[in-house]
Amino acid sequence: MSKKLESWVDIPSQSDFTIYNLPYGIFSTADRGDRPGIAIGAQILDLRELSGTGLLDDLKMPLGVFKKELLNDFMALGKPVWKRFRDRITSLLSTENEELKPFAERVLVAQSEATMKMPIHVGDYTDFYSSKEHATNVGMMFRDPENALLPNWKHLPVGYHGRASSIVISGTPIKRPMGQTIPADASKPVFGASRLLDFELEMAFVIGQETKLGERISVDNAEDYIFGMMLFNDWSARDIQKWEYVPLGPFLGKSFASSVSPWIVPLEALDPFRIDNYPQDVEVLPYLESKGKHRFDLNLEVALAPESGQETVISQTNFKYMYWNICQQLAHHTVNGCNVNVGDMCASGTISGPTPESYGSMLELSWRGQKPLTLAGGEQRKFIMDHDTVIMRGYGEKEGIRVGFGEVRNKVLPVD
Amino acid sequence: MSKKLESWVDIPSQSDFTIYNLPYGIFSTADRGDRPGIAIGAQILDLRELSGTGLLDDLKMPLGVFKKELLNDFMALGKPVWKRFRDRITSLLSTENEELKPFAERVLVAQSEATMKMPIHVGDYTDFYSSKEHATNVGMMFRDPENALLPNWKHLPVGYHGRASSIVISGTPIKRPMGQTIPADASKPVFGASRLLDFELEMAFVIGQETKLGERISVDNAEDYIFGMMLFNDWSARDIQKWEYVPLGPFLGKSFASSVSPWIVPLEALDPFRIDNYPQDVEVLPYLESKGKHRFDLNLEVALAPESGQETVISQTNFKYMYWNICQQLAHHTVNGCNVNVGDMCASGTISGPTPESYGSMLELSWRGQKPLTLAGGEQRKFIMDHDTVIMRGYGEKEGIRVGFGEVRNKVLPVD
Repeated sequence: MSKKLESWVDIPSQSDFTIYNLPYGIFSTADRGDRPGIAIGAQILDLRELSGTGLLDDLKMPLGVFKKELLNDFMALGKPVWKRFRDRITSLLSTENEELKPFAERVLVAQSEATMKMPIHVGDYTDFYSSKEHATNVGMMFRDPENALLPNWKHLPVGYHGRASSIVISGTPIKRPMGQTIPADASKPVFGASRLLDFELEMAFVIGQETKLGERISVDNAEDYIFGMMLFNDWSARDIQKWEYVPLGPFLGKSFASSVSPWIVPLEALDPFRIDNYPQDVEVLPYLESKGKHRFDLNLEVALAPESGQETVISQTNFKYMYWNICQQLAHHTVNGCNVNVGDMCASGTISGPTPESYGSMLELSWRGQKPLTLAGGEQRKFIMDHDTVIMRGYGEKEGIRVGFGEVRNKVLPVD
Repeated sequence: MSKKLESWVDIPSQSDFTIYNLPYGIFSTADRGDRPGIAIGAQILDLRELSGTGLLDDLKMPLGVFKKELLNDFMALGKPVWKRFRDRITSLLSTENEELKPFAERVLVAQSEATMKMPIHVGDYTDFYSSKEHATNVGMMFRDPENALLPNWKHLPVGYHGRASSIVISGTPIKRPMGQTIPADASKPVFGASRLLDFELEMAFVIGQETKLGERISVDNAEDYIFGMMLFNDWSARDIQKWEYVPLGPFLGKSFASSVSPWIVPLEALDPFRIDNYPQDVEVLPYLESKGKHRFDLNLEVALAPESGQETVISQTNFKYMYWNICQQLAHHTVNGCNVNVGDMCASGTISGPTPESYGSMLELSWRGQKPLTLAGGEQRKFIMDHDTVIMRGYGEKEGIRVGFGEVRNKVLPVD
């Protein structure tokens, strides 16, 4: 962090994709098939083309991973390779280094000409529930305001298995789901389109190193298994969820879709934004005791654009509001010997801050529909309407260093 | 079913693997790498070798699927190919047909010389909760004996997402999981080995035809998407589960392991055992109305062998006790547009019958430990002990036709 890094690639001011970031994605263009790339400014560094320049040959890593249409094989090379490779890319893109410049036309592609693809095959997907404010808000609304947090909540990072098949990339339209719901005071459910469609603002980490069944990941080593992070929208149909979820948890109220931002930001790129762990006020069992700085100060926001297109920022929050950090989540996940695979994804759960403007879902922002939000154009919203677009953004900024996640943006379509 | 089929391959009496069955698996031997095979009697028909004989060439299917080490690509060829291929295998193995006999030594392998492997890559795994007796028993124990079934239970097949990575094949040792549990009347959890380790006797179906996100599978077409079925042991740590599962459902209490029998029995092989659907006593929404015979009369049993090795059959039940059938489960699963992939697995939930001898878990058999079982050797069991082996078996038998699933057998190992 001592010396300011600069790139010979033009980096627009306020770009998420500075030389400190270098996030990984999969893209295609009119004449380039799906392939790995790294975002830099408004460009993408085409890793397949780069691997043909000879500039990576001395890294002693299998360059065939850049012939793939997913990042899983690259991630599976392990943390020492991630680090060596990232150092080389940092060097090749920095102003001090002239080696890559002659190849610029071949290896750089404008983001405006690229289509981003789902960058990984997701094996298993787990969703945690690690924001105290979110869990408290939900507990107040649906259970007991006096005992909003359940007894287990401060002893373990509550989580559940989610549906991996329906995780889609930013830009994918989200069809309003059909399902069973039960009208107030009715004794029988009805079938129809969900009327309480919601987003959940989350961050997800991606596993880059597998374990075998029976192995545990310690809270101290957890970051060795984490490749990077993405923005995650855990779309939710509140009315479907409410009727189905007791006793086995959310199912169809969530599995119709989750969406992610296209770029995986390497964990290393988030180092400048580390802060002390959350001051947990209940002593945890030793396997969950996390030392060091595994919490991140990352600004997050949600904007909503109705069909007219005019955006309103409806939530501003921060990843630092997480009570449980990613190391605690992964240590807990594997303490029973559950194995993880490269490409597995773990989402944080809705990230809500302490103030009403910082809540991470419509459920909380409109307090179950009791306090509708007014959008810039004058329309009101309790939940998400057809043709609304939900946009989530996130970035860290500190001492002139900016690292951003881009956005996850999806438009809601009506039922067929 | 009119004419009795016979095979030129010797079929031991009481064999699960008659010519009416022809289940698919992945096996290896000392000199044959992992490859697809079909069980017949005490032999395996090596599909990779068979595809080199020329006897499949006119089927107009890509024989490269038999070069794979998993069945996913074969399954993805779709139902018309499954049927055409099965008809050919039936013909080649029947006494009327002499074509395959000259190749017998090359294409047949003794099961005793083979090692079975996990036959598919499981994408997503879903666990249902579809036995009324099981849900009632659990509700009586943990909730309200007067209102044991929750209000949603008869309106929808309750299910939840499970962990796919930890599904293992029969024979894999199961390590007793560690985790958090809360002692009776304590205010804080403790960490240690689960003391209430249990099995759950289930059947699972395997998806053989994918859908796209947003598509629904109708209850009438559901069987077109189902390739076949397996025995499924949903290992459960009751004490871990109890502390963690409210409000988001089972997580570490299940994700340490699930185990399956090695052979996938094609749905078509179960035709002789079809019976009328379960007489549901609450009217369901139209998307769940199932006509025809989608329930199966299949005998199931669980045996327990302590370290001494002497087996005791501790449960005898039947797949016919399922209230919700596989078509209703799949129609419900996708009614919100959730997509399914080839290799996805859906388990039934614990299968319990109406009598105490037919319960599908130790939790129910020992009624939460209040009624210990006495094994043949005199030992008692409330839950599963270290070094115990749990064996599940299943078969249908009708009018001289027997189709079986083999077994799923796993030994429990102590914590490290």
